[in-house]
Amino acid sequence: MTGNAQICKLSGPLQLDGGSLLEGVEIAYAAYGELAADRSNAILVCHALTGDQYVADTHPITGKPGWWERMVGPGKPIDTNRYHVICANVIGSCMGSTGPASIASDGSPYAMRFPVITIRDMVRGLVGLLDMMGIERLHAVVGGSMGGMQALSLAANWPERTARVLAVATTARHSAQNIAFHEVGRQAIMADPNWRQGDYYGEDAQPDAGLAVARMAAHITYLSEDGLTGKFGRRLQDRPDGTKGAKSFGFDADFQVESYLRYQGSGFTKRFDANSYLYITRAMDYFDLAEEHGGRLADAFAGSEARFCLVSFDSDWLYPTAESRHVVHALNAAGAPVSFVELSAPHGHDSFLLEHEALDRVVRGFLDG
Amino acid sequence: MTGNAQICKLSGPLQLDGGSLLEGVEIAYAAYGELAADRSNAILVCHALTGDQYVADTHPITGKPGWWERMVGPGKPIDTNRYHVICANVIGSCMGSTGPASIASDGSPYAMRFPVITIRDMVRGLVGLLDMMGIERLHAVVGGSMGGMQALSLAANWPERTARVLAVATTARHSAQNIAFHEVGRQAIMADPNWRQGDYYGEDAQPDAGLAVARMAAHITYLSEDGLTGKFGRRLQDRPDGTKGAKSFGFDADFQVESYLRYQGSGFTKRFDANSYLYITRAMDYFDLAEEHGGRLADAFAGSEARFCLVSFDSDWLYPTAESRHVVHALNAAGAPVSFVELSAPHGHDSFLLEHEALDRVVRGFLDG
Repeated sequence: MTGNAQICKLSGPLQLDGGSLLEGVEIAYAAYGELAADRSNAILVCHALTGDQYVADTHPITGKPGWWERMVGPGKPIDTNRYHVICANVIGSCMGSTGPASIASDGSPYAMRFPVITIRDMVRGLVGLLDMMGIERLHAVVGGSMGGMQALSLAANWPERTARVLAVATTARHSAQNIAFHEVGRQAIMADPNWRQGDYYGEDAQPDAGLAVARMAAHITYLSEDGLTGKFGRRLQDRPDGTKGAKSFGFDADFQVESYLRYQGSGFTKRFDANSYLYITRAMDYFDLAEEHGGRLADAFAGSEARFCLVSFDSDWLYPTAESRHVVHALNAAGAPVSFVELSAPHGHDSFLLEHEALDRVVRGFLDG
Repeated sequence: MTGNAQICKLSGPLQLDGGSLLEGVEIAYAAYGELAADRSNAILVCHALTGDQYVADTHPITGKPGWWERMVGPGKPIDTNRYHVICANVIGSCMGSTGPASIASDGSPYAMRFPVITIRDMVRGLVGLLDMMGIERLHAVVGGSMGGMQALSLAANWPERTARVLAVATTARHSAQNIAFHEVGRQAIMADPNWRQGDYYGEDAQPDAGLAVARMAAHITYLSEDGLTGKFGRRLQDRPDGTKGAKSFGFDADFQVESYLRYQGSGFTKRFDANSYLYITRAMDYFDLAEEHGGRLADAFAGSEARFCLVSFDSDWLYPTAESRHVVHALNAAGAPVSFVELSAPHGHDSFLLEHEALDRVVRGFLDG
């Protein structure tokens, strides 16, 4: 499937939570399906930390299918025969929307001069895009992981802009452990001499080694222990010399799980910008929807008239079910209509991206209901 | 308390699992309490990944108390009024026993020419020390985490050398997730340009940045999510300018958990050698006691006449209770006498190092019984 990836330049600056104005913001997005004449059938899909607008398009760098192609398309749970589906790269990222690699007004990349942003700032950019498109009220906002944070933030801060909120495998606040894992990744990037305080654009050497380590550490948190054991266990790599299943007594990747992680790390550096990784993880760590609304999460949803659906996975230890339940309790306290399901899945946090028939039924049922 | 840290040079070479001979092995150890005339009251305490022989002595580099001072000493659960307690630095480590920083026969440090070792090789070194001391049979071998692996390895491979085996918060094999976390740490070290393929001894710059990232990633696995939340939550650091509890909208350590992790990482580099970290994590990843004994864990313990005690902590997600239970089932199948207790503790894997009265009672009861 191919969409129509394009760039929208917002008409005005974004007033950011950190106090500064971000001028000349561009939002890169893809759209699928026809927008109804009354503009009532738009669904905004929000992407996760390292995702992008290529939700149902072949990725232009990796050549891989869109990150949620199994969910978005004609006849699929988010059915582009019925809905106009929009997916936009968040600000701070690196696939066309304004971020640290973008050129600032002085003609040089922002690099670390890019302002620190929040999840709400990302959603400001998305709402700006909806304004440009003339979409006043979404049929639904949908997202998993950091995408779910955006969905909850939109519901809390722009309650009139959506009729439905579907938040999958997510949380209303980053925990100490979540922050800790991100901090390891940031330290790995900033320890890489090729990072050069962020000023590596145009240099021969990029902070790929640090970014790869950051990705490896994060990747472990996306998978369950059982999933890793099932997929790799303690199985050994075949050696380059053809030897099967023998330890090298060296430091090459002996175990399949080592080889897999190295592959995940090095592949990631081809498609992602290290500074974007710093900024987006920071935004996630800052995310605390209750704190934004006086300290009580229910108050965040006091103005909402949307219907909510929360989904968690029993093997997700990054944003475990208790985090979704915490949101559900707040929605109950706010009197908002909410359905909640914990799905059983062996693959941990990444389950939301993988084949899961029960998830498909929940998504379809909620959006079409 | 001060012991009598000293070096023992083994009389012969060690035949290693990887096939090579390690010559001129030195073992640095500390000993506490009187050895009985019949040499029957010796307890060998085995240390964890980053531990050392300073179990009940002030650490010579950090100036901090011994790592298990609350457990080892006069009148303590491992009572030096009754027992002769020995704790030795494992080979591959960096506090006096032969390791990658040691000088090889050509007059230069081994660095990455040091042979890859296994947990069993570490125990070979410890058994060599016991031989030199004339201790044929221990009253007990005791260890937590990697120390527990050594205790189990000694019981399996030198069954006549100990009457009791106390293994705390440990496992008989490293899981895919365990290996994955270690691999992240190794990649962080090896990505540091100051690592120089391991040849950094005597250089001005050491691979401290990579080693610190490795330590940070590992440290997260030593603590429970609840423990981190209880200790730090989302609390913010006071800013250098005196501002309390405000986000900096920058990349300094805003959250207390970030500051704590950075402190853990940088403090660690002052007392630990990066190459030792590579070798010891490799040994742990290679550890699979069943595989060493034909694939069936019970067979590892077939020749044992020791009594066993296994202890796990309910919040330990590094080596969860299921891993201890797996060992207990194997011991049951081997007909070995074993007691097992899962203790409740909020602090995750590190609970074995912390104040825990129930652990004290279990240790004392098992050793004195």
